[in-house]
Amino acid sequence: MLPREYYDAIQLTPEGQLKHFLTIEGLPPQLLTEILDTADSFVDMNAQQVKKVPLLRGKTVANLFFEASTRTLSTFELAAKRLSADVLNLNISTSSTSKGETLKDTLMTLQAMHCDMFVVRHSASGAAHFIAQHVTPDVAVINAGDGRHAHPTQAMLDMLTIRQHKGDFKNLKVAIVGDILHSRVARSEIHALRILGANEIRVIAPATLLPKHIESLGVKVFTEMSRGLRDVDVVIMLRLQRERMQTALLPSESEFYSLYGLTENKLAYAKPDAIVMHPGPINRGVEIESRVADGPRSVILNQVTNGIAVRMAVMSMAMSGQLNTQSSSFTESSARTESL
Amino acid sequence: MLPREYYDAIQLTPEGQLKHFLTIEGLPPQLLTEILDTADSFVDMNAQQVKKVPLLRGKTVANLFFEASTRTLSTFELAAKRLSADVLNLNISTSSTSKGETLKDTLMTLQAMHCDMFVVRHSASGAAHFIAQHVTPDVAVINAGDGRHAHPTQAMLDMLTIRQHKGDFKNLKVAIVGDILHSRVARSEIHALRILGANEIRVIAPATLLPKHIESLGVKVFTEMSRGLRDVDVVIMLRLQRERMQTALLPSESEFYSLYGLTENKLAYAKPDAIVMHPGPINRGVEIESRVADGPRSVILNQVTNGIAVRMAVMSMAMSGQLNTQSSSFTESSARTESL
Amino acid sequence: MLPREYYDAIQLTPEGQLKHFLTIEGLPPQLLTEILDTADSFVDMNAQQVKKVPLLRGKTVANLFFEASTRTLSTFELAAKRLSADVLNLNISTSSTSKGETLKDTLMTLQAMHCDMFVVRHSASGAAHFIAQHVTPDVAVINAGDGRHAHPTQAMLDMLTIRQHKGDFKNLKVAIVGDILHSRVARSEIHALRILGANEIRVIAPATLLPKHIESLGVKVFTEMSRGLRDVDVVIMLRLQRERMQTALLPSESEFYSLYGLTENKLAYAKPDAIVMHPGPINRGVEIESRVADGPRSVILNQVTNGIAVRMAVMSMAMSGQLNTQSSSFTESSARTESL
Repeated sequence: MLPREYYDAIQLTPEGQLKHFLTIEGLPPQLLTEILDTADSFVDMNAQQVKKVPLLRGKTVANLFFEASTRTLSTFELAAKRLSADVLNLNISTSSTSKGETLKDTLMTLQAMHCDMFVVRHSASGAAHFIAQHVTPDVAVINAGDGRHAHPTQAMLDMLTIRQHKGDFKNLKVAIVGDILHSRVARSEIHALRILGANEIRVIAPATLLPKHIESLGVKVFTEMSRGLRDVDVVIMLRLQRERMQTALLPSESEFYSLYGLTENKLAYAKPDAIVMHPGPINRGVEIESRVADGPRSVILNQVTNGIAVRMAVMSMAMSGQLNTQSSSFTESSARTESL
Repeated sequence: MLPREYYDAIQLTPEGQLKHFLTIEGLPPQLLTEILDTADSFVDMNAQQVKKVPLLRGKTVANLFFEASTRTLSTFELAAKRLSADVLNLNISTSSTSKGETLKDTLMTLQAMHCDMFVVRHSASGAAHFIAQHVTPDVAVINAGDGRHAHPTQAMLDMLTIRQHKGDFKNLKVAIVGDILHSRVARSEIHALRILGANEIRVIAPATLLPKHIESLGVKVFTEMSRGLRDVDVVIMLRLQRERMQTALLPSESEFYSLYGLTENKLAYAKPDAIVMHPGPINRGVEIESRVADGPRSVILNQVTNGIAVRMAVMSMAMSGQLNTQSSSFTESSARTESL
Repeated sequence: MLPREYYDAIQLTPEGQLKHFLTIEGLPPQLLTEILDTADSFVDMNAQQVKKVPLLRGKTVANLFFEASTRTLSTFELAAKRLSADVLNLNISTSSTSKGETLKDTLMTLQAMHCDMFVVRHSASGAAHFIAQHVTPDVAVINAGDGRHAHPTQAMLDMLTIRQHKGDFKNLKVAIVGDILHSRVARSEIHALRILGANEIRVIAPATLLPKHIESLGVKVFTEMSRGLRDVDVVIMLRLQRERMQTALLPSESEFYSLYGLTENKLAYAKPDAIVMHPGPINRGVEIESRVADGPRSVILNQVTNGIAVRMAVMSMAMSGQLNTQSSSFTESSARTESL
């Protein structure tokens, strides 16, 4: 883990504006609130008849998905198109990296094509940071999930959903349930909830799916749902990677469901007005009972709607931060252009 | 088969406007004529230098192809883009359904992203209806082919092609030739020709490729080309699914061609000014002789051109019908939006 | 090889405007200069905040890639989008040709959809010409690489890069190094350099990778880097197809690198201000030393940037040539439209 100052330096302009969006860690609370406020305005816009604003008109957004994800790719693609950007989808696993080209060469090639933004998903933790370090100063990098490290737009759409339903974070108890060990979503949510001042953050998982020293992130650890869910305002279920079932880390699906699956019975431990969240796609009968997923306390589809709005917010904010950086270093950039 | 009133109810607004386009069956003749008239104006538009109108600007069209079809997908994609929509192509077989997500969850996720229209192709009969029943009221569903059931845009582009060449349907004799049993195209064409008042509809096929009780649809059945083609104005050849050759249903390709392949010799049975149609892609020397496919009576490429125009027509009409429905139920929809 | 007059006739309008872009061979020097000048203006445009011009608004560009190439496809896709065209990407290997449709039927179908331009990449030499011969007069064809024959946009982006760094071509000595035998890039570059009046064109390769009678193209042949690179102004390295390593044509990678890989030591034979080019993606340590690829004399990334600009130039020029042709043959085309 890099020190906090590092993240500040790479993600923010000297004036504190977003220029990349790589991780929640180290961001000031005002910036997270600004992202949520901006996203709220895009929620309204997406409910209009004409869902299109010219904020990224004439910009090129390249979606670099080293790890396949139809759903996440679709939300970034729609977000970019509704911002009027030109979009290039690159499934890197099938492209020139297979011809032996290095990642760095791929990046330098794409920025030579004057791509303005890279949306990156990669199975290796730190990939988005690596890319942000190696792109030219005028390319914005958005992390769409890197290994076990971070999935910051997922965390922010969850925060937006919580704020819409619960208002202030100050009095909230939030429980995150499932495979904490492998979850970049959990890590990013914990950072966001801490920065936004949640009253109490809990993780609930079998001991084999808990990272060591997870308490150091400021969370309370539970291994039983009956205790962990008691009096919480928000229940966030994680997606179970079924591949992990093969290993010794996880019991059978049915055993996991009986212990940690969110049923109406278990949900009764939470507050009567507690909301239920899940990043999707859901495995019905594995992490969550259908009656809960489709019930009145589920806000799972609101999360999807908010996902587009949050991505539009961070894309437009990061691009705006980049442009301000460029205009303040005008001499350099015009010199660079002329040397082409 | 659902009763006729069902189709009316699900496809049309209370005022009789199109809001989904799932099947030809049960639609009033005036509506089919309105589709043809609208498509005619898009034929003119597509021949202009600038093939672009803002009718779906700020709308999102999701192409949900559970069954691969490059050609049909391309025509819907082009139609949507020329209407200025944002387009999302989803090859569902490779996406999250493979992660165990149910079809309904996929649909609810896409409508939570504020997709305005689903273009659906699926190997199961009834899939488009199922989807139309389960989407929120403001999403329009267009059937791009479901199992053996219906392929209504193909039928309407064929009707447009016939009308352009023959004018009125009243005096026309039309023969549909080939694998009637498995053909959703044939079913939709028969409904369209009946509703538009064609004088006589014939099907010509070996007995093994004829559905039972096909006469109940109002067609005359022939098993020989020499009799079935006599004096017809329009010959519609169906595409032969070569996979079916493996089964006992079909003789060899060469035997099929000698009996049912459209050659110049067989075409001589039809009227001297009869036109020849095929939904494409054509198997030369299996369903049709090259001299006929490329000859002066073939209107196969006009069908392709009309395919874009008809798809633009039904997409813009269904979206318009949806919007009228929404504005007339303003209280409900604004309530829904606020609960997000 | 077709005679020179053929190329003129098929690529140019009677007034000498570009209407297809299939090969460099046979084009007049003024036209190449016009392409470079037009591309220069697009280089400036691509460095602007809003990289978008309406030159192809309402036009449909179909990318027909019979041979996969993520990088080349991306540059054509971006070029078309920045010209405001609607873009259809067709990976033909997975589409209807697999259903048994002939190439000609695929083409006729696409032009019936009113595609205005085909960008074609194919493993067979002559494929782009074949297509240009068979499309209707109003469709422009751009060759994005056909077999061993030609890759004219790659050659023109290289010419643009050379002109930006060296000004006039008259006094230049240019060396092309590597697998000349299989390289469509080398062939197109040799034609372009000759037409633009380069002082001396050299090819450097092992004897097994030299086509017979290559001297007839007006080049000097070298088999040793120490002699071939002496006093050159420009070094163009070719990409080595690793598949060829399996055959007897090539020694091992390491042996190739020691004899023909561009190292700083070998580069010392060239002029002190010689520039280094490579079409990408580069194989570091096979064709080129990393210190050279990333060094101050490398213009490899400028080539990428120029690739977008050159493609925008030929696409907009060819479309403009097509439109002028159409307006001068108004009677024919309106007759054709009416027969639809």
